[in-house]
Amino acid sequence: MGILYNQVADQLHALIRDGVYREGERLPGVRALSRQFGVSVSTVLQAHQTLEARGYLEARERRGYFVHLPRWDTPEPVMQKHRARPVPVSARDMALDLCADEQKRMVPLAAAVPHPDFLPVRQIQQATLWAARRGLETLDYAFPGKIEYRRQLAQRMATLGVMATPDDIIATNGAQEAIILALKAVTRPGDIVVVESPSFPGILQALDVVGLRVIEVPTHPSEGMSLEGLELALGQWPVKACVVVPNHSNPMGARMPDERKQQLVQMLERAGVPLIEDDIYGDLFHSGERPRPAKVFDRTGNVIYCSSFSKTISPGLRLGWMMPGKYLAEARQQKYFSNLGTASVPQLAVAHFLEQGGYDRYLRSVRPRFREVTERMRAAVGRSFPEGTAVSRPQGGFVLWVQLPGNTSGTEVYRRAREENINVAPGLMFSTTDKYENCLRLNGANPWSERIEQAIGRLGAIATAVAAES
Amino acid sequence: MGILYNQVADQLHALIRDGVYREGERLPGVRALSRQFGVSVSTVLQAHQTLEARGYLEARERRGYFVHLPRWDTPEPVMQKHRARPVPVSARDMALDLCADEQKRMVPLAAAVPHPDFLPVRQIQQATLWAARRGLETLDYAFPGKIEYRRQLAQRMATLGVMATPDDIIATNGAQEAIILALKAVTRPGDIVVVESPSFPGILQALDVVGLRVIEVPTHPSEGMSLEGLELALGQWPVKACVVVPNHSNPMGARMPDERKQQLVQMLERAGVPLIEDDIYGDLFHSGERPRPAKVFDRTGNVIYCSSFSKTISPGLRLGWMMPGKYLAEARQQKYFSNLGTASVPQLAVAHFLEQGGYDRYLRSVRPRFREVTERMRAAVGRSFPEGTAVSRPQGGFVLWVQLPGNTSGTEVYRRAREENINVAPGLMFSTTDKYENCLRLNGANPWSERIEQAIGRLGAIATAVAAES
Repeated sequence: MGILYNQVADQLHALIRDGVYREGERLPGVRALSRQFGVSVSTVLQAHQTLEARGYLEARERRGYFVHLPRWDTPEPVMQKHRARPVPVSARDMALDLCADEQKRMVPLAAAVPHPDFLPVRQIQQATLWAARRGLETLDYAFPGKIEYRRQLAQRMATLGVMATPDDIIATNGAQEAIILALKAVTRPGDIVVVESPSFPGILQALDVVGLRVIEVPTHPSEGMSLEGLELALGQWPVKACVVVPNHSNPMGARMPDERKQQLVQMLERAGVPLIEDDIYGDLFHSGERPRPAKVFDRTGNVIYCSSFSKTISPGLRLGWMMPGKYLAEARQQKYFSNLGTASVPQLAVAHFLEQGGYDRYLRSVRPRFREVTERMRAAVGRSFPEGTAVSRPQGGFVLWVQLPGNTSGTEVYRRAREENINVAPGLMFSTTDKYENCLRLNGANPWSERIEQAIGRLGAIATAVAAES
Repeated sequence: MGILYNQVADQLHALIRDGVYREGERLPGVRALSRQFGVSVSTVLQAHQTLEARGYLEARERRGYFVHLPRWDTPEPVMQKHRARPVPVSARDMALDLCADEQKRMVPLAAAVPHPDFLPVRQIQQATLWAARRGLETLDYAFPGKIEYRRQLAQRMATLGVMATPDDIIATNGAQEAIILALKAVTRPGDIVVVESPSFPGILQALDVVGLRVIEVPTHPSEGMSLEGLELALGQWPVKACVVVPNHSNPMGARMPDERKQQLVQMLERAGVPLIEDDIYGDLFHSGERPRPAKVFDRTGNVIYCSSFSKTISPGLRLGWMMPGKYLAEARQQKYFSNLGTASVPQLAVAHFLEQGGYDRYLRSVRPRFREVTERMRAAVGRSFPEGTAVSRPQGGFVLWVQLPGNTSGTEVYRRAREENINVAPGLMFSTTDKYENCLRLNGANPWSERIEQAIGRLGAIATAVAAES
C-alpha cells in the first residue's frame, strides 16, 4: 500500500542507504527513472521532492537532483539493558503538565498530540451535529456504551482478525481510562506490573493512581519489548499484569513483529499473567498493512485490548474503548463504579463517522502525512543535533525518540529550550529511574513549517552546547 | 419562591395536617378561599387539584372538595441509631446494575434517573448543536475543563455565596468521578471515611474502588447526618475524610439546616478532616430558596465541593465538576492521570445553556413537577402499603425512602416485584450492613400515569403479603 510516489521514494532511499548512489552523485534523469520504475514523470518528480524533504537529495538548478546525505546517518537508539526490579511508581515528580494552558504558545514538540491540521475537523463536526440531533438517544447513562458505537468497534475488530460482539466491549474516557480499568480489574494495590522501557508516561501515571509497583523491561527500537527480559521478570517476581504497546509504541515507535506478539501472548498465558494491550497507534502505521494487535493471538481471553480515537479523530472526544476478554465482568464493574458510563454524543458521532466510512478515508489520507512529517523531523534532527545522537525510526505514529550522545542531559536541553519557547518532553518522564536522562521525545504531528524547522535547529544547537559542557 | 397555587396548596395541606379541617369535612367554597388567600379562583382550583393529587382531598360532584386523608398518615422514617465502626467496603455483592439494558422494559422505580419527560431535551439538543459547530474549540484535551464551562460554574457558585474563579474548578465525568478524585486526593487505600447512613450506593461504590474503609453515621430524615454520631466517630477513629450530601440526600431526602451545615464544616475543620460535599440535588429543591451548600461556610478550603448535571440536564452528558479548595493541586493531578480531561462538546453545550439562562428557566419549570410527582408517589404509598410503613418527606430531589413495618424484607419485595416487571432499589444497597433490609428506595422521577400508580399499588400488595409472612 502507500501512495505511488512514496514507494518510488522508498526504493531510491534504499539505493542511497545501500551506497548505490553516494554523497554528491547525480541521480539518473527523470525520464530514465520514469522508465525504470514504470511510473509517470510527475510521480518521479514527487518522489524527488519527498526525498529532498527527508534530507537525502538536493536540487541544483537546471542540473537535477544530487545525493546529499545528512551530516551523519543517524542510527536508531540501542536497547538499554538494565536489571529489572519492582519499584513503587510515583509519576508525580516527573509528570509535566503537557496540556497546561501556559504551554499553548510554545512550539509544541512535547505532548504527543496531533496538530488540528491532521484531524478530520470538518467531518467530526458533521458527525457531532448528526449525533446531537439524536435527542432522546443522547440522554441515558449508556452503560457500558452506546450500542451503535460498540457495534462499529466489533466490526473493526473483526477486520483485524479478532472476533467480538458489542457485549464484549466497554466504551471508555480514552485509552487512559481503559488501561486504568484493566489494571484495577486484575490487580490490587502494591502488586507488581511489567511495562516497556522507555515507557509511555500515561502508563506510569496509571500505575501511580492504582498504587502499583513496576518492573521496566527494555524495549528494542524495532522489535518491541524484550521477551527475554520479560521472561526473567516473570521467573523472578509475582507479576500480576503486563502492559504493552505492540504497535508503534510511544516513545520508541517500535512495532513488534507478529511472531513476537504471538510469543508474548503465549508466554503470559502460560504464566497466568494478563496482557494489557494498548493499540492506540495501530491505525497510524506509515505503510504496508495494518499491523495486527496481539489480541489476534489470544485464545483464552487473557488479553485486555485497549484503544482510543484521541490520536486519530480528536483528543477532545475523550473516547476510547476496551475489550477485556475473560476479565469483562470485573472491568464492567470498575467502569460502572467509576463513572457509570461515557458521554453519549461523542460515541454516537464516532459510530456515525465509522459507519459512513469517513474514518477509513481519513486514515488513508493522514498516514502518508504523518510519515512525511516524522521523516522530515528525523532528517532535521540529523542535520542539527551533535554527532553521536541516535534517533528512532518509527514505522507508525508521530513521535521520535532522541538519544543524546554520552551523558548529555536531556533535562537541561528541555529547560533551555523552554526559555526559547520550545517545548519538548525530557527523557526522565519515560521511566521511574533516571536511565533516560540523556533522551528527549519529540512530537512530529505538526505541519512542517519554517517555525518547526528552526525550532529543531535551535534544539540541535542547544543539545550541542549542553553536550560540549558535559 | 414556588408557583402560587403550590403555596396555597401547602397552606391548605398544613391546615389539614394540623386538624383544622378533618377527615370528611368540606373545604370552604372556592370564592371564600380566593378571598382568604388573596388569589384568583382559578389558582384555588389548581391548589385543590394539587391536594387531590397528593391524596388529601376528594372532589364530589357539584358539592365541592372534601378532606380525605390517606388511610394512615404516613410518618417519616426514624433515624436508625447504631454503633459505628470502620469496615472495608465491598459494594460488589450488593451493587445491582440499575442501568443494565434488561431493566429498560421494567417500571423504572429503582435507579434515581429522571424520565426524559423531565429533561430539557430540546434545549440541550440546541445547545449541543451550538457546541458541535465550535469546530477547533472541541478538539483539545481541555484539561482541567473548557474555560467557558468553568467560568459559568464560577458564576453560579458566586450566586450561591461561594467565591470561585475558573481556576478553582475541574470538569469531571459526573459527580461520581468528582467524589472519587476527591477521595483519592485526600486518602490512601485502607483509610477510614465517614459517610451518611443510609448511604447513596454510588458513594459506597466510590469507597470500594478507592479501597477505603467506612464508618456509617446515621442520617436524620430532615436534619441530615447526625453531628453527634460524627463527633463520636471522629473521637474514636483516625478518620481521613467525610462524604456528605447536605441538600436532599439520596435516599433519605434530608436537607441539613444551615446552622448544622456550619457546625459540620467547623467540626471537620477542627478535626483536620476534609469534607467532601456532594450537592447534586441542590438545584432540585421543591420550594422556597435554593438551599445553601456547606461550602458557603468553608473559611479554609477544607470543603471539596462536587456536583453534576446528570439529575437536571441529562445523565448522558456525563458531566459534573468539582471545586477542591485547598486540595486543588492533588485533585488536578488525579484527574490528569486518570483520563487527561473531560469530553469537550458536553462542556461547551452546558456552558451555552447556562449562559443563555436556559438552565435557570428549566429549573423553575421542573421543580414543581418533581415536587408533584414525589408527593403523589408518597400519597400512593400511603394508600397501598401495609400499616406501619414509614416514608420520607423529601424537600427536594425525587426519591422516596420507604421503611417497611417490623422485619418485612425489602429484598423479598424487590425480588417479587421484579417478577412483575417492577424495578425498585432494595434497602441492602444503601449500607455495608444489613440494617436497611426492611427498606426500599423509590424513584419518583416518572410522569404520573396509571402504569406508575398501578405499580405502586402492586408494590403495596406485595409488601403487605411479605409483611404478613414475617
